[in-house]
Amino acid sequence: MYKNLSPVQLDRLDPLKAMRSQFTLPDNLIYLNGNSLGPLPVATKQRINDAVVKEWGEGLIRSWNSADWVSLPQRLGAMISNLIGADSDEVIVADSTSVNLFKLVHAALKLNRGRSKIVTELGNFPTDLYILQGVERDQRVELCAVAREQVIDEIDENTALVVLTQVHYKTGEMFDISAVTKRAHAHGALVLWDLSHSTGAVPLELNAAGADLAVGCGYKYLNGGPGAPSYLYVAKRHHSSFEQPLTGWFGHSSPFAMSDTFDPAADLSRALCGTPSVLGCIALEEGVRISLQADIEQVREKSIALSELFINLVDERLSSFEFELASPRDSSRRGSQVSLRHPHAYPVMQAIIAEGVIGDFRAPDILRFGFAPLYTRFVDVEAAVALLAKVMEEALWRNPNFQVRAKVT
Amino acid sequence: MYKNLSPVQLDRLDPLKAMRSQFTLPDNLIYLNGNSLGPLPVATKQRINDAVVKEWGEGLIRSWNSADWVSLPQRLGAMISNLIGADSDEVIVADSTSVNLFKLVHAALKLNRGRSKIVTELGNFPTDLYILQGVERDQRVELCAVAREQVIDEIDENTALVVLTQVHYKTGEMFDISAVTKRAHAHGALVLWDLSHSTGAVPLELNAAGADLAVGCGYKYLNGGPGAPSYLYVAKRHHSSFEQPLTGWFGHSSPFAMSDTFDPAADLSRALCGTPSVLGCIALEEGVRISLQADIEQVREKSIALSELFINLVDERLSSFEFELASPRDSSRRGSQVSLRHPHAYPVMQAIIAEGVIGDFRAPDILRFGFAPLYTRFVDVEAAVALLAKVMEEALWRNPNFQVRAKVT
Repeated sequence: MYKNLSPVQLDRLDPLKAMRSQFTLPDNLIYLNGNSLGPLPVATKQRINDAVVKEWGEGLIRSWNSADWVSLPQRLGAMISNLIGADSDEVIVADSTSVNLFKLVHAALKLNRGRSKIVTELGNFPTDLYILQGVERDQRVELCAVAREQVIDEIDENTALVVLTQVHYKTGEMFDISAVTKRAHAHGALVLWDLSHSTGAVPLELNAAGADLAVGCGYKYLNGGPGAPSYLYVAKRHHSSFEQPLTGWFGHSSPFAMSDTFDPAADLSRALCGTPSVLGCIALEEGVRISLQADIEQVREKSIALSELFINLVDERLSSFEFELASPRDSSRRGSQVSLRHPHAYPVMQAIIAEGVIGDFRAPDILRFGFAPLYTRFVDVEAAVALLAKVMEEALWRNPNFQVRAKVT
Repeated sequence: MYKNLSPVQLDRLDPLKAMRSQFTLPDNLIYLNGNSLGPLPVATKQRINDAVVKEWGEGLIRSWNSADWVSLPQRLGAMISNLIGADSDEVIVADSTSVNLFKLVHAALKLNRGRSKIVTELGNFPTDLYILQGVERDQRVELCAVAREQVIDEIDENTALVVLTQVHYKTGEMFDISAVTKRAHAHGALVLWDLSHSTGAVPLELNAAGADLAVGCGYKYLNGGPGAPSYLYVAKRHHSSFEQPLTGWFGHSSPFAMSDTFDPAADLSRALCGTPSVLGCIALEEGVRISLQADIEQVREKSIALSELFINLVDERLSSFEFELASPRDSSRRGSQVSLRHPHAYPVMQAIIAEGVIGDFRAPDILRFGFAPLYTRFVDVEAAVALLAKVMEEALWRNPNFQVRAKVT
């Protein structure tokens, strides 16, 4: 349905077009960085104000029960489970993605005891690599970080765990969760998926794929706000043996009994550690609520159409300016972002940001554009490429002040 | 200056009386639970709204720099350092207290390598015990949890670390940080202080006491909001050898270089893990700002005066009702709370809460009253005891509906 139409026509026919009104988007700005920090949902403003003024200010300590703060981790987990093809009790919200990676890596080493190798991708998102390097430093495990195309071959009978980010943060290249999981399981290895650049933008069917473990970020396509808490997923078949090292009081079977002895919760609450960050959870709840209203197949279809429009326009209009597509051209292998390589990527990105199109630079030479289908319009894509063309044609990126402000609405 | 005056006179002479106007406190409510969750500061409401609407909503990803989100952990740490007698680069804000305990316990075991024993107090705050039990389960260490009066004697030449909460969450009993630290150091052991029930209510001089490591909670006397982030302290002499297991990207020397190899920050930023919870940090900043305006010696003096008034009135008015003082009578050994034991503690607390005085119940038989000097008035203490007397005299605690609402303003 998205073929051979103008951007204006595409927007008119877009079945998701009404979703945009649920977001606060500044005038005169095209935001193509929702894969890094999603924008503020309209409802979040009032909800946070209520949480601060009524729940905290008036309810005080009573709001742990009366406003049900105490079940935020489970409630949010159940909501997110619908976005990733999991059961409601297989997902829980807690801490940061990095902390949750740490928990699940340790849990996996216990689930797969006797094996001592962890396989990951060189160039994986930094915090994934760093957490794994810390585990290698402190535990008897060998970390094998290999090039993307060698990951599968690196998995062997000594591999306890494979840690991969489904959609690559730089290139947007996407793994097939089901296929990789099958290959890993064939060798008896578990897989931990980082879904930070997937959740809310790509259809996910973790249980259908036979997945083991996953984490995901709350502040990208879930629009949960800066530094929003993260979620983690553990397949039910692993629950009874699941043991993680951060045994804080919220992971206890009965936290408020205040007993002297740690007794892990029977369910996935044992993945919790300290007191949940209530304001962060509440902001995340509003963001997730919007994603739950959208048909994820429509989201994916629009994501591909936005990305293809971008690629086609870049081919048409920027062919003389040394840009190189850093993302897969095949949309089935690409998440919801398109990255371009350019020798002057940094000043070019600075120039278009100064002119009102916000993308992202990733060292050394990547311009990254995220296409979040819930609020990005086809005309935004067209205007972004038009600005990029203008910045190149007029060599605005050579001007350190970027003073000319183009119309990009 | 607080002797032999009526509560009204005490309030009139209180040098901190103006601080109360900086807090949002519901009418007809006496809040004696700020040691569990501090109330909403007036300034926080607007500040959070600005952070949501302007910084997130309008600034979007740019606010990491333009609103300086990126330095919140260090900036807040420097502010809190003034409350605990530390240097500005010895404190950083991150994660929850439980997660920070985990980091520091592991760091201490490396700082004191070769020793395999950890000493703590039976009845320590649950999350402290649980984190330590997890470490014992996963590492080659022996955890010795002993009665409070045996802690000192349990420290020996094999003790790597002593983990204590300075002010006991149930009884308010307070350790002498300097004395215990000296005793531990005499055996070559390090001490990790949990200052959750101290910070903002009790004068702290960590560096003068020769302290090693500490953590503290943001949502009690610091009034940072529900689930606020926590802080951790590491004495500068330990910085160069400090290594913690949660090696996330915010602990990297250059997080945004996105290198493949973890290189810990040269300074205490290496204690960070994932992306900071921005909304939580911003709320905490407003709370801490208020504490920094108060003279901590005046805070302590008022805290003692409030507690003594409470104890004296309980002695006077409740002597016939089986209450027993669960806190030290000697104010020099007591934090900013007073706890009472009673065989019917739970329904008695429920009854006074229903009547507008909020304290806390701690199983099995503790009624806990926190006296946060920044906003608690002497007339509040008097009214709380008057209500307690009324509830006992009229046996209101036997009425499961607690329908009678007394005047307690």
